[in-house]
Amino acid sequence: MPFKFEILKKSKKSKARVGKLHTPHGVIDTPVFMPVGTQATVKTMSPRELDEIGAEIVLGNTYHLNLRPGPDLIKEAGGLHKFMNWNKPILTDSGGFQVFSLAHMRKITDEGVEFTSHLDGRKHFLTPEKVLEIQAALGSDIMMQLDECVAYPCDKKEAKEAMERSVRWARESKLKMSNDKCQMNVLFGIVQGGTYRDLRKQSAEQLVEIDFPGYSIGGLSVGEPQAEMFEMLDIVTDILPEDKPHYLMGVGYASDILGAIKLGADMFDCVIPTRLARHGAFLTYEGKVNIRQARFEKDFSPIDPECDCYCCQNFSKAYIRHIFGAREILAMHLLTIHNLRFFMRMMQKVREDILAE
Amino acid sequence: MPFKFEILKKSKKSKARVGKLHTPHGVIDTPVFMPVGTQATVKTMSPRELDEIGAEIVLGNTYHLNLRPGPDLIKEAGGLHKFMNWNKPILTDSGGFQVFSLAHMRKITDEGVEFTSHLDGRKHFLTPEKVLEIQAALGSDIMMQLDECVAYPCDKKEAKEAMERSVRWARESKLKMSNDKCQMNVLFGIVQGGTYRDLRKQSAEQLVEIDFPGYSIGGLSVGEPQAEMFEMLDIVTDILPEDKPHYLMGVGYASDILGAIKLGADMFDCVIPTRLARHGAFLTYEGKVNIRQARFEKDFSPIDPECDCYCCQNFSKAYIRHIFGAREILAMHLLTIHNLRFFMRMMQKVREDILAE
Repeated sequence: MPFKFEILKKSKKSKARVGKLHTPHGVIDTPVFMPVGTQATVKTMSPRELDEIGAEIVLGNTYHLNLRPGPDLIKEAGGLHKFMNWNKPILTDSGGFQVFSLAHMRKITDEGVEFTSHLDGRKHFLTPEKVLEIQAALGSDIMMQLDECVAYPCDKKEAKEAMERSVRWARESKLKMSNDKCQMNVLFGIVQGGTYRDLRKQSAEQLVEIDFPGYSIGGLSVGEPQAEMFEMLDIVTDILPEDKPHYLMGVGYASDILGAIKLGADMFDCVIPTRLARHGAFLTYEGKVNIRQARFEKDFSPIDPECDCYCCQNFSKAYIRHIFGAREILAMHLLTIHNLRFFMRMMQKVREDILAE
Repeated sequence: MPFKFEILKKSKKSKARVGKLHTPHGVIDTPVFMPVGTQATVKTMSPRELDEIGAEIVLGNTYHLNLRPGPDLIKEAGGLHKFMNWNKPILTDSGGFQVFSLAHMRKITDEGVEFTSHLDGRKHFLTPEKVLEIQAALGSDIMMQLDECVAYPCDKKEAKEAMERSVRWARESKLKMSNDKCQMNVLFGIVQGGTYRDLRKQSAEQLVEIDFPGYSIGGLSVGEPQAEMFEMLDIVTDILPEDKPHYLMGVGYASDILGAIKLGADMFDCVIPTRLARHGAFLTYEGKVNIRQARFEKDFSPIDPECDCYCCQNFSKAYIRHIFGAREILAMHLLTIHNLRFFMRMMQKVREDILAE
């Protein structure tokens, strides 16, 4: 099935919308939360459990998969879907963000970015073309262009240079996609510009001019106040075509996501639900709560009596607290199931609320 | 359902037999392998996955559960079955073996054993009565008496004293069970005696005289040669009543189990399949193999094409090797599923072969 974005309903109260994103590996209901499968697995989860919690798409990290096991091996396995036994859509990032946050001794030029692997210290060079070749080998449904993400705070000169370089790389990426034939997957351009209104505006305008089937908003949720993130997003979604999907990268907490949906964002990913689970925290509408707390010692009720996940339907807080304290893997696993299902149910409710307006 | 052991078929070639063990929580096909759930979970496995791989009974460790979360909490939760959400039979050991192998500064007297917790250094005292009270609080279907296990090699005097003390404790345990009314669960006596033929013989004879609904053979697979283990087992099963189940504790490797079945052993438990999995090894009929080997880098075939487990049906060696190398929990989990299923299928085949004789 070719790529298509279909808007089912626009909110009357905000820029929120409910849609369906058609991809080669299936249809995604938006707004959507995408669990992160950094190293070809969503941490602790098997693919059938991802199915069960209602995941419709997962994210793979190009930076990690490029270093290990490498795109050639995954291609030989028949692509990332087959390799990890996940038959629904996959979105891959470009590796840019990880290069900026994980890699050592990175050197950015107009040609691309050189970095030292966090695994073995070997030097690598990523270019706009190279990251597309890697993602094509992975066979992801939705690919990202190489971009340059800046930290927060960042002075304007630096933010401007990074944004302009990202736009140039967007153009080169689009060209590369046009030259390669028979590709089922699509490429998103990425809006940058730090927390500068005019830079965000210019970035969005220039990307729209290049014309992508979908747009990502990068470089947010990197330390700036929520209000500032929302302001940037608002400016950007006013410019991006309404009939294209908007992916707010790496966001985030429930309150970030709920606010961003009202500003027209459709797609989200974040390691928060899975990472918190491995640290013993479960998600509730009132925020995160740690299972290790003494008050749960003899609490034989589930984490959330309303939740339909395997964890909440079968295990008590006292039990999970015990196995977490005993460092049993099942504890991290059950909490991950709950936290991901919590996000899935939250998105489902958001979609239903908009449809019911 | 009350406890009952039913022999369906005796082998014509050996002392092997196929049976059904009826317990309050269901029927177990013997010979049976019991996955070990030390801390109220079989490491990495959820109860529904244990069901799926065909586990009919799991083992809980009294030593660990007594220290954390404690028998009172588990009793308040409604017993171990409810606490860990496992509705099939549970066998608990007495904690004796762990005291001898894990605990520090243990002191054995005729009254019981004093030891220092490996968790917090607090002193504990276990008596034959106390371990039954703990196991009753856990609500296990099959309980073990407190016994004294000796190391290998062990001089005869020490082995004799430990055996005689274990027999005295067996008598006290039987008395305690007779005095407590309305108990659904049953108690097994434990044969000791090191690797001394006459001590093993005396131990078995005296336990038979006390009369238990089932008998365990302890203190084997502690370092002695396999031939010696088999010799001891052979002596013991000649003495134990044929119509009672024989549980060879903590054994073991596939070849140990297959040999022991021919000598009349019905029940087995061992951490080998789960522990090996966490170290990257999978089980085959040719022995254990480590998934990290370079030859599996591009091996896109399953661990065992004949195996019906979730791991073998859905993932390649190359994938598992990759996620194991990336320290992903799913790797240990998938290998555990395979290794336990391997043992389950092995036992199933043994039962079928005897029935088909």
